[in-house]
Amino acid sequence: MIKVGIVGGTGYTGVELLRLLAAHPEAQLTAITSRKEDGLPVADMFPSLRGHVDIAFSSPDKADLKQCDVVFFATPHGVAMAQAPELIAAGVKVIDLAADFRLKDQATFEKWYKIPHSAPDLLEEAVYGLPELNHEDIKKARLIANPGCYPTTMQLGFYPLLKAGIIDAGNLIADAKSGVSGAGRKAEIGTLFSEASDNFKAYGVHGHRHTPETSAQLQRYTDQKVGLIFTPHLVPMIRGMHSTLYARLTQDITNDALQALFVEQYKDAEFVDVMPFGSHPETRSTRGSNMLRIALHRPDNGNTVVILVVQDNLVKGASGQAVQCMNLMFGLPESTGLKQIALLP
Amino acid sequence: MIKVGIVGGTGYTGVELLRLLAAHPEAQLTAITSRKEDGLPVADMFPSLRGHVDIAFSSPDKADLKQCDVVFFATPHGVAMAQAPELIAAGVKVIDLAADFRLKDQATFEKWYKIPHSAPDLLEEAVYGLPELNHEDIKKARLIANPGCYPTTMQLGFYPLLKAGIIDAGNLIADAKSGVSGAGRKAEIGTLFSEASDNFKAYGVHGHRHTPETSAQLQRYTDQKVGLIFTPHLVPMIRGMHSTLYARLTQDITNDALQALFVEQYKDAEFVDVMPFGSHPETRSTRGSNMLRIALHRPDNGNTVVILVVQDNLVKGASGQAVQCMNLMFGLPESTGLKQIALLP
Amino acid sequence: MIKVGIVGGTGYTGVELLRLLAAHPEAQLTAITSRKEDGLPVADMFPSLRGHVDIAFSSPDKADLKQCDVVFFATPHGVAMAQAPELIAAGVKVIDLAADFRLKDQATFEKWYKIPHSAPDLLEEAVYGLPELNHEDIKKARLIANPGCYPTTMQLGFYPLLKAGIIDAGNLIADAKSGVSGAGRKAEIGTLFSEASDNFKAYGVHGHRHTPETSAQLQRYTDQKVGLIFTPHLVPMIRGMHSTLYARLTQDITNDALQALFVEQYKDAEFVDVMPFGSHPETRSTRGSNMLRIALHRPDNGNTVVILVVQDNLVKGASGQAVQCMNLMFGLPESTGLKQIALLP
Amino acid sequence: MIKVGIVGGTGYTGVELLRLLAAHPEAQLTAITSRKEDGLPVADMFPSLRGHVDIAFSSPDKADLKQCDVVFFATPHGVAMAQAPELIAAGVKVIDLAADFRLKDQATFEKWYKIPHSAPDLLEEAVYGLPELNHEDIKKARLIANPGCYPTTMQLGFYPLLKAGIIDAGNLIADAKSGVSGAGRKAEIGTLFSEASDNFKAYGVHGHRHTPETSAQLQRYTDQKVGLIFTPHLVPMIRGMHSTLYARLTQDITNDALQALFVEQYKDAEFVDVMPFGSHPETRSTRGSNMLRIALHRPDNGNTVVILVVQDNLVKGASGQAVQCMNLMFGLPESTGLKQIALLP
Repeated sequence: MIKVGIVGGTGYTGVELLRLLAAHPEAQLTAITSRKEDGLPVADMFPSLRGHVDIAFSSPDKADLKQCDVVFFATPHGVAMAQAPELIAAGVKVIDLAADFRLKDQATFEKWYKIPHSAPDLLEEAVYGLPELNHEDIKKARLIANPGCYPTTMQLGFYPLLKAGIIDAGNLIADAKSGVSGAGRKAEIGTLFSEASDNFKAYGVHGHRHTPETSAQLQRYTDQKVGLIFTPHLVPMIRGMHSTLYARLTQDITNDALQALFVEQYKDAEFVDVMPFGSHPETRSTRGSNMLRIALHRPDNGNTVVILVVQDNLVKGASGQAVQCMNLMFGLPESTGLKQIALLP
Repeated sequence: MIKVGIVGGTGYTGVELLRLLAAHPEAQLTAITSRKEDGLPVADMFPSLRGHVDIAFSSPDKADLKQCDVVFFATPHGVAMAQAPELIAAGVKVIDLAADFRLKDQATFEKWYKIPHSAPDLLEEAVYGLPELNHEDIKKARLIANPGCYPTTMQLGFYPLLKAGIIDAGNLIADAKSGVSGAGRKAEIGTLFSEASDNFKAYGVHGHRHTPETSAQLQRYTDQKVGLIFTPHLVPMIRGMHSTLYARLTQDITNDALQALFVEQYKDAEFVDVMPFGSHPETRSTRGSNMLRIALHRPDNGNTVVILVVQDNLVKGASGQAVQCMNLMFGLPESTGLKQIALLP
Repeated sequence: MIKVGIVGGTGYTGVELLRLLAAHPEAQLTAITSRKEDGLPVADMFPSLRGHVDIAFSSPDKADLKQCDVVFFATPHGVAMAQAPELIAAGVKVIDLAADFRLKDQATFEKWYKIPHSAPDLLEEAVYGLPELNHEDIKKARLIANPGCYPTTMQLGFYPLLKAGIIDAGNLIADAKSGVSGAGRKAEIGTLFSEASDNFKAYGVHGHRHTPETSAQLQRYTDQKVGLIFTPHLVPMIRGMHSTLYARLTQDITNDALQALFVEQYKDAEFVDVMPFGSHPETRSTRGSNMLRIALHRPDNGNTVVILVVQDNLVKGASGQAVQCMNLMFGLPESTGLKQIALLP
Repeated sequence: MIKVGIVGGTGYTGVELLRLLAAHPEAQLTAITSRKEDGLPVADMFPSLRGHVDIAFSSPDKADLKQCDVVFFATPHGVAMAQAPELIAAGVKVIDLAADFRLKDQATFEKWYKIPHSAPDLLEEAVYGLPELNHEDIKKARLIANPGCYPTTMQLGFYPLLKAGIIDAGNLIADAKSGVSGAGRKAEIGTLFSEASDNFKAYGVHGHRHTPETSAQLQRYTDQKVGLIFTPHLVPMIRGMHSTLYARLTQDITNDALQALFVEQYKDAEFVDVMPFGSHPETRSTRGSNMLRIALHRPDNGNTVVILVVQDNLVKGASGQAVQCMNLMFGLPESTGLKQIALLP
């Protein structure tokens, strides 16, 4: 059994990790920290876990995370980089669900996240935890930077086209929509039910932290200079993410050949479902599951490809992906504990 | 492996059965019928099942349901009573999720459901599939009448008080609220998103079919004449049911003793969670799971007991309960395939 | 034109007052205070008001509220009682949307609201602002205690029966459901979209402040000792309130006679709509309007009457009712500026 | 008073017309037809109208629409073209909320709508009812083709840039999102609450009827060949539309100059609100009102302009715009009866 610790278990990625790990046949929840909730049984905060999780939150000072085999950081950025070095030195594997190790370039990190990086030595070693593209590196990693939710959809959607070299990489548009849980479990007026319900809006159109993360990753796969316009929106639903991606073809290609690029690329990816050409995937078809679904369109058979990508932002977009990485790191089948079927309706 | 057939798999209880059975370690989906969708792969209608269910709907005429060990009827009332006799005669066990066999009294059935009963001979034999109260009978049953969603909450909520003989059975009030999926997957204006969203209303206050079902069952446990006022309401949520039950105490009793009645009654019931006295259970704490949660209140320490009961109407209120019955009928541990943790948030 | 001031305009009752008063033909918005938002144009916080409201918030220290003819307090309890005495002394009428003057009994106030009352001398004079029952007193009032949202529905629903003396006043049950806006515009986890959406729960079942308010008012109309069980619930909708009231008849009466009691009582009440016997009013039929709708039921023609009452909690349940009081206080037709038709769908 | 008739008053654009016209100071509801609901009081179907609308539906055969000054068609396409010729010949003005007269080219209409056009002679005369661009023509019109909801946002968003000749007209992208009421009040599974709630999806990506309508209108304003990619999505909210428009600049221009183009263009448009550069308009800021709000963005100060446009799809996107046209046709101030403030929250 893998002994698992969680730092910061009171947010949505934290409770989602708990749901997944409590049902994971090879994982044993060993410690979960929260300074504020020290001593509170986890199931008192999240009654959905009654009968499934019987440990209590403990103060970070008391928890002996070094007894764990792996520690997940489900914390705001800045926490993992402070604690990871000591854990890694002690032989504990670390998976950070925040952004501390997603950007290889320290200056870019500090520009977008407005704090100094306290563990820059680990930036190079950290492996970007997108299993469909970094499978082998993840297996050997000591430190995983779990991808952002939006970047997961954008990368898996654009990658096959970029790799094939058939689109204008300088002119990518991602019009993305997220459920409200993506904003986290924080007491803020903007995400109150009475504000976010029966409403739709864009946000951060002038610049969002997931743009540099995605651009830097996509740049690894092309010699062209990547240019990405990313527009996030807030959808009145709890879970779910839908990215509508636009790319301009630079070569003649049939729709069948386009589709084949994606089918071939993801034929061994258990959690990527390439739907029939022209499908309209719904976010709910992934609710609570680790699946990401992709469908291709080509309006009027012109030179614009529209790629629709959906996932559950808390599973494949966060905690499920982190468990997928853990499985790889510990030599388990990739889908261990991740076979939940989406809840529909 | 238990060979399972489903009649009427295109509704919400049908797709929920599919979700549960596809992940059930001892069940094998063998046939699923739909006259209208003959030949359509199930996963084409419900993309959430892509990769999990690979059979297609077949016309009732073609499906050989007699090869199954058990057949679930996830149909409107009237279908099971037409087909059950032949299946049972052939040695197939039947679980009806509709109302055909819930009422022992034929006249009462025909009064409330407005159709003649075509299999009255089976009414006596049919076992009411509420495992927490009819455990032993279910184990031996050939024909199960799976309870209605509302009746499940009302019976499990009132039962310990009724059995203890400490309330006025003639003066029970159940103010109940259901998510919209309870109305089924039928094209109707009243349950359109634009009608049911951002709205709340009562319905059927003059008389609802779940009243005679519940009254008849409760009557089994008391010598007093049961009198029940039942008021259902529609909540703008997909899944979830919350019953607020009111009973008048006829004897002095402490709150501790009240609580103990419930704790004792359900101490072996894996799917009934008696929460601490004074709790406020939320429907979402059961979303997608087979748990039913109960909490007791006693306003102003007076002689009215308020019992709060929540469940997922499609799981414990329908398909999960049916699988729970199947497990008992086939000698499996009651919770086989039913350990899903609720999806929160 | 009536010069109007608003103290505390950044909450939901505040912005609703602004919506109503900006369109009111006899009112002129003169001052609106917020310590935190001093200088911010109101329409910057609430873009729905762009083009309709052009004043800015001002600090309470700077605003000269004494120049107003009437001041509304859309504040948490405790604020109005501190400021009302000085305003009233200066000849300004005061309408408090909070609870400071709703309870005549100082001790009861202090027990339920946990703060000392700083203006007990005004408790006797304050008029409870429920126009359908206190019409004449409101016309002459200097200080209005605007009713709570739940109490408005409970009083208008039980009143005709209580007055007629045909029910057991000691055995009233109110099972009430409110949209989330009733919890106000406060940054709290419990009312986040991801917590309150797709969910239903009861709260405060052990005791809610609206119980003593309602009981005290109802007690004015009967010689029996009023006993009220009040159970509030949270509905995943923004606006809307639905109270399901249960009363036991103590006398024989026909359904027609019951209905006639309500029709007669409210025949001159512009904002109370008594629907046909057996109707199921929907909250959305009042969304954004000042209407309250009532419908009567009598299950199985027994001795329990079920009264369904719906309103928009922010309009008839708060700000609309306050404007209705203002109209009466200034000799205007009661419905001036309050004729908005509900938004459906 | 303008005598108004409505054909097809049982859908969402119909009931929205009723809401607006019942409060319109110069309009008198004279006839409303529905074959199916002949004789039913309108307020029985839509209780929100109780006390505001006292006429009943009448069969089209009985209604004397020729006594009206203007008739609105709130019907599926195909109805207005059958009845409009006779009404117009009789001197009645006609406003069609469906698509019958939106496309000047008969072949294009028949290709996209799959029915023959029965009144092609009127295509040339029909005026496209977008007041902000066709103000003078609308004043003189006998027959108005009220624009589609999506096309309204796309045209008002792209127009100033297209007119200025500073973008690549062949490369326009409109990623648009609509509330569910846009699908109408029809009994269909796809828009049930349990299907559309807590979900997000694109639809019709291969081709939507609003593409040829928008392209043809935009083509009027540029010599370049218009190329438009239009991707509609369904948002789990009742009302509201948000279009995110992308255009490539072909000339150097400052952000201030960009903003000035829009401010100048719409300075006299009462119902177009150009927000400060970089704003994020929310759909709810238009809920129930006839306002359309626009905000400009320029990510990374590059050569892509992002234009955010919001409106209430049933008001400015349908019935409000139709009333705005009526006002112009009858010489009234454009905003008569259309000053409702958006409902927020």
